[in-house]
Amino acid sequence: MKVIKGFIVDQEENYQLNVINHIRQGIRNFARQEIITRKNDGTLFRYTYKDSYERMQRLANALQSIGIKVGDRVGIIAWNHHQHFEIYYGLPGMGAVMVSLNLNLIPEELSYVINHSGAKYIIVDEDLIQVAESVAPLCKAIEGYIIITDNNLSDLKTNLKPIYSYEELLNKASPLFDWPYLDEDSSYAACYTTGTTGKPKGVYYSHREVYIHTLMFTAKFSISVNDVIFQMVPMFHVLGWSLPQTSACVGAKLVFSGKWNLSDLKELTYLMVKEKVTISAAVPTVFMAMYEVIRKMDEKPDLKGARFLCGGSEPPITLMKGFWDETGGEIVHTYGSTEGLAIVTLNYFKPWLKKELTEDELWDLKKKQGTINSGIDIKIVDEEGNALPHDGINSGEILLRGPWITRTYYNSDRTKDSFTDDGFFRTGDAGSIDSEGYLKITDRIKDVIKSGGEWISSIDMENTLMSHTGILEAAVVGIPHPKWEERPLALVVLRESFKSIDEEEIRQYLSKSFAKWQLPDKIIFVDSIPRTSVGKLNKKVMRMEYKGIYNGI
Amino acid sequence: MKVIKGFIVDQEENYQLNVINHIRQGIRNFARQEIITRKNDGTLFRYTYKDSYERMQRLANALQSIGIKVGDRVGIIAWNHHQHFEIYYGLPGMGAVMVSLNLNLIPEELSYVINHSGAKYIIVDEDLIQVAESVAPLCKAIEGYIIITDNNLSDLKTNLKPIYSYEELLNKASPLFDWPYLDEDSSYAACYTTGTTGKPKGVYYSHREVYIHTLMFTAKFSISVNDVIFQMVPMFHVLGWSLPQTSACVGAKLVFSGKWNLSDLKELTYLMVKEKVTISAAVPTVFMAMYEVIRKMDEKPDLKGARFLCGGSEPPITLMKGFWDETGGEIVHTYGSTEGLAIVTLNYFKPWLKKELTEDELWDLKKKQGTINSGIDIKIVDEEGNALPHDGINSGEILLRGPWITRTYYNSDRTKDSFTDDGFFRTGDAGSIDSEGYLKITDRIKDVIKSGGEWISSIDMENTLMSHTGILEAAVVGIPHPKWEERPLALVVLRESFKSIDEEEIRQYLSKSFAKWQLPDKIIFVDSIPRTSVGKLNKKVMRMEYKGIYNGI
Repeated sequence: MKVIKGFIVDQEENYQLNVINHIRQGIRNFARQEIITRKNDGTLFRYTYKDSYERMQRLANALQSIGIKVGDRVGIIAWNHHQHFEIYYGLPGMGAVMVSLNLNLIPEELSYVINHSGAKYIIVDEDLIQVAESVAPLCKAIEGYIIITDNNLSDLKTNLKPIYSYEELLNKASPLFDWPYLDEDSSYAACYTTGTTGKPKGVYYSHREVYIHTLMFTAKFSISVNDVIFQMVPMFHVLGWSLPQTSACVGAKLVFSGKWNLSDLKELTYLMVKEKVTISAAVPTVFMAMYEVIRKMDEKPDLKGARFLCGGSEPPITLMKGFWDETGGEIVHTYGSTEGLAIVTLNYFKPWLKKELTEDELWDLKKKQGTINSGIDIKIVDEEGNALPHDGINSGEILLRGPWITRTYYNSDRTKDSFTDDGFFRTGDAGSIDSEGYLKITDRIKDVIKSGGEWISSIDMENTLMSHTGILEAAVVGIPHPKWEERPLALVVLRESFKSIDEEEIRQYLSKSFAKWQLPDKIIFVDSIPRTSVGKLNKKVMRMEYKGIYNGI
Repeated sequence: MKVIKGFIVDQEENYQLNVINHIRQGIRNFARQEIITRKNDGTLFRYTYKDSYERMQRLANALQSIGIKVGDRVGIIAWNHHQHFEIYYGLPGMGAVMVSLNLNLIPEELSYVINHSGAKYIIVDEDLIQVAESVAPLCKAIEGYIIITDNNLSDLKTNLKPIYSYEELLNKASPLFDWPYLDEDSSYAACYTTGTTGKPKGVYYSHREVYIHTLMFTAKFSISVNDVIFQMVPMFHVLGWSLPQTSACVGAKLVFSGKWNLSDLKELTYLMVKEKVTISAAVPTVFMAMYEVIRKMDEKPDLKGARFLCGGSEPPITLMKGFWDETGGEIVHTYGSTEGLAIVTLNYFKPWLKKELTEDELWDLKKKQGTINSGIDIKIVDEEGNALPHDGINSGEILLRGPWITRTYYNSDRTKDSFTDDGFFRTGDAGSIDSEGYLKITDRIKDVIKSGGEWISSIDMENTLMSHTGILEAAVVGIPHPKWEERPLALVVLRESFKSIDEEEIRQYLSKSFAKWQLPDKIIFVDSIPRTSVGKLNKKVMRMEYKGIYNGI
């Protein structure tokens, strides 16, 4: 797009937007606010923003002391805790780039990311040392490892070297740091997207992008110093869905989940209630499990006013309604992506819709991903790239552009295909937008099932399956078929007390919402459904596993 | 400040921040939201954001049709109404600069502003034509006048020429406009500050500054689509204290006050209650008058949750407490300036202070101007420019710097004195900052009274006077004194039923808070206190009027 110069009075370089400013300036106001980490032994560590900010300055000095300079990249392999939060500011604040590393990647992928980023150092949790060890032989450029541990370095068993202790480095460093005044286009952090095909792609977020996005998100989600934010989303995932930055922008109380997996959700749910959490975020699977915990509580927690961002895939209406009925807390349906700096839509009710729609219609509306945040240009386009009307019917690929939307993959030949010439990011998701501006994701472009020249939406079918009381999880993929090109296959995980449900019953249930020809030819009951490292359905794996299943038909 | 380049991945020009985007993109979500104007005849005009946005596009086309181009300046002489709101977007959106003209300036000042800005056109309300006429002979460069009127041009009696009808221009124009993609450093609007000395100084706000400030303010003040914003602050005053932009950012319902003065406040108060206003802003005098109206209502309105920004001078605690007790609405003490893009501080209670302080202590805290918004660097400095500690005791000149703080006056030799080399704006206000970050304005640097080498704070004394039940308004100025250099003089306006109060009683009252030598030598009872065009105490005039009063002593 050609930039047109208007009447420009101030010719000097603009005051540069540095992310550290959110906390450097904010600390004037919320130094005493609390930050909590759930430790591995279940106890809680508590300190304040003041303590945290001092340690961020120590960290910046410490990083300098071992030779890390402005522009250097540093990889992070860590759970959600206050040290990770310190790194979110201390590291990019001193001018280096925080490369968030996904714990769930296999060594080949992880080492690819590390080498591609050119990271010089790795900061790693003690109990994730084996992840670093698995990639160390493949990452020759790494100059050292900083271990986050309460133990003495000499007590650690590892072949990593050289190693430093995070705590020792901080103890030795000065508690005051004179933050550099960075060009706002300098990278703040990088996240690599692990798509279903090809190598991970590097999304580098500039200070400017994160700074502006933080203000927008804080405004849009009305986050304030009165909020208590529970950081469950892994902090390596799209900057923790931006919640750490919004917290630091307004001084919200922060609760870090520590190391956790699905089996810890009972404990996390109780922690959430105890600390009076008002904001959190997770994929539907997590909230489903928390909901199960809440359902079994004798006394239901009062979460009135609390808002839980839920995205990655569509949260079932039974979950949203159940959560609301049991606790008063609201599941806010959202949609985003690594390239979109996490949150692209939020499903909020507008005051006039609250008046006009019936309760059922409102719940129905919550199935949509929500309205697109201001700041973002959005287009839905057909296969030729023509913009489609926002009529709630036409569905096409979603293109995004805006002050914080990625416009390039670092050093990647995938950039060309993934971004348009006029700066739009091609999401690869298909959707429609209704006249009120609500986006509905209809499919991943590549997940649409083509059967006999007609389309079947795998996402619609998954959502319908998930609305069945007896079904815990479901996935639908298109499998090559000799006659129809592709035919749908459904994988289903049944709930414990519904194991007797059979294929026919499910087909009956689906037939209320789908044409006969759209129904899956086979429904397979499984114990779990393959997911990617960030919790999305891994359709690549499913297609691979079941690729021959319709051959003989 | 030297900018340091970090690791920069995306070398292309950034997505430029254009203010029009807030509404261009937002309209997807809040097209149906309502906008209301109180018309001169007391009736209400209602339309929607959708209607407004269409008219913004018509306006942009209309401006082009009469030859206004990107970069041109256009002066606005108008009350608060929906057309003024259309101008806020349509005019800068098409690349011209909106020069806000203060209705209260004398012709010499107003023509200076118009000529200094290089404005080509003036847009003026029909009932303000005489203002335009008074400056027309002094503003030879003006090429035409656009009159906002419901009447036919031929029915207007005016010697302005050429003239255009705002409505006719819009009717003829296309309802679709392809907004230019402006360099974000292009000026969005200009406001001229009318200081107590010298010529008005031109503050030009860039699109970038207004865009980012809008997000910050929306976030900090938690403004949402559920809010109803009552625009009473004149829209020519620091962009209407930024409320129009925040409204358009989230699609809040907007109510414009129309033409009004203090005698209309009964009607405005009833309108505020009827339209369920949740946010408004004004100087203390206005809220004092509204409070008087509310006190006389038989049934007190329920304004629970409503927040009223109050700045310009300190709102008396009796007002803040009274408002709260009668309505549940909160007066939020604020501080700002034209150069600070209106709002620099907001007085919010932090959750921990709400727990720790007694009710009286909390009310006492509300006398402070509030915590400084994030984004802003603040320093308080002594006369040598040394930074003073934030201990709540030391007081010095307040310096501000940040992404939306002005760094230059357009084409003015005052720039040199008013801004520091490292980019701070010298506010000319003195203040202290306590350990919780609350700013307390202690004085205008030039309003401090020097008596026998000691300082007396005129602001402290004014606030104390205002806390007296019988006093409606008060001002304290330093008057030259043969012996003491300066001595304080107090001007006092008594409330209707307290006219019997005498000088001695007031001196008694003051002596509870001030040393004997600090008490004003004279207290003069007046019917009103001189104010500047933006409603601030006009101490220049007072000093002039009473300059000889202590000569014979």
